[in-house]
Amino acid sequence: MGRWEPDARGRMQRAALELFAERGYEQTSAGDIAERAGVTERTFFRHFPDKREVLFAGTPMDEAMHDGVLAAPEHATPHEAALAGMCAGAALLEERRDYAALRARVVEATPPLRERELLKSAAMTAATYRALRTRGVSEPVADLAAHSAVTVFRVGFLRWVDARNDAAQQSFADIITATAAELRALM
Amino acid sequence: MGRWEPDARGRMQRAALELFAERGYEQTSAGDIAERAGVTERTFFRHFPDKREVLFAGTPMDEAMHDGVLAAPEHATPHEAALAGMCAGAALLEERRDYAALRARVVEATPPLRERELLKSAAMTAATYRALRTRGVSEPVADLAAHSAVTVFRVGFLRWVDARNDAAQQSFADIITATAAELRALM
Repeated sequence: MGRWEPDARGRMQRAALELFAERGYEQTSAGDIAERAGVTERTFFRHFPDKREVLFAGTPMDEAMHDGVLAAPEHATPHEAALAGMCAGAALLEERRDYAALRARVVEATPPLRERELLKSAAMTAATYRALRTRGVSEPVADLAAHSAVTVFRVGFLRWVDARNDAAQQSFADIITATAAELRALM
Repeated sequence: MGRWEPDARGRMQRAALELFAERGYEQTSAGDIAERAGVTERTFFRHFPDKREVLFAGTPMDEAMHDGVLAAPEHATPHEAALAGMCAGAALLEERRDYAALRARVVEATPPLRERELLKSAAMTAATYRALRTRGVSEPVADLAAHSAVTVFRVGFLRWVDARNDAAQQSFADIITATAAELRALM
């Protein structure tokens, strides 16, 4: 790098989110994001391949879930181990609820980002599945446990960032546990 | 149309699937698909905006699920109604297992098609959610029931098209019911 850039990556991510929210994704270029973040366009492309990737870099949610599943107690059922993975993923976001809420709104309103978010979900399911298999869980059970846990994570995430949830201020992990219990009751 | 083209759309869909399987998605153009199907490229673009959409046109899975949820008995629980929607979706594929199996393999191996397939899943969840809301189911319950039903559908689908399932020859609808029971037991 030509000069020291403290947290250039984080600044570009915040800048991108602001610009996408203010003027829309289509109306924002990589150059706009770089300018708002106070870096050159060249620096932008050293960190990200394109503007779509900016909001998806640097949060290895699938790895956190994978490691969380492996770290669950030995006696945990596949479902419990999968939920432990979801809570490990939730921990990455716990302190950043406002950012996560704004990001969720921007993603929901922007088809290319929604597609990318779905890929991220699929990667979370795959990582959870792999970790359950490593624990010795059979293929069909691991598949179902991973899919349903990520379903609980996604529904729980939307509840956690929902503005109407402001008063309650439950932690994301608590909401995941409550959502899993609701799903159990529902079925 | 310049001349009568019996089932041109179906022929193009089969041609696309064959070509994607034989030489890969990237190596297949809209013109190749038209040629194999015996139609002009102009005809291709009258039916589809691009080659990515060919395998996703003409199967209104989300509508079938929506209508299936609404057609469930009045006393059905939200979970039961959502599963009725999944079985209505399954009915669209029941007679086309070989096509569905080949299509699933091609989609899984082709990132742009995988992304598109995830969007289709999201549309199925949204349609199921809307139908449950129309039935008077509350927002959080409808959300969870729709997400978990589509999870059961997707896991059930992979089991149904799995080559190792050939001997059993269970119907897709039966596999959905069995998968839902397994999920219940798992939780």
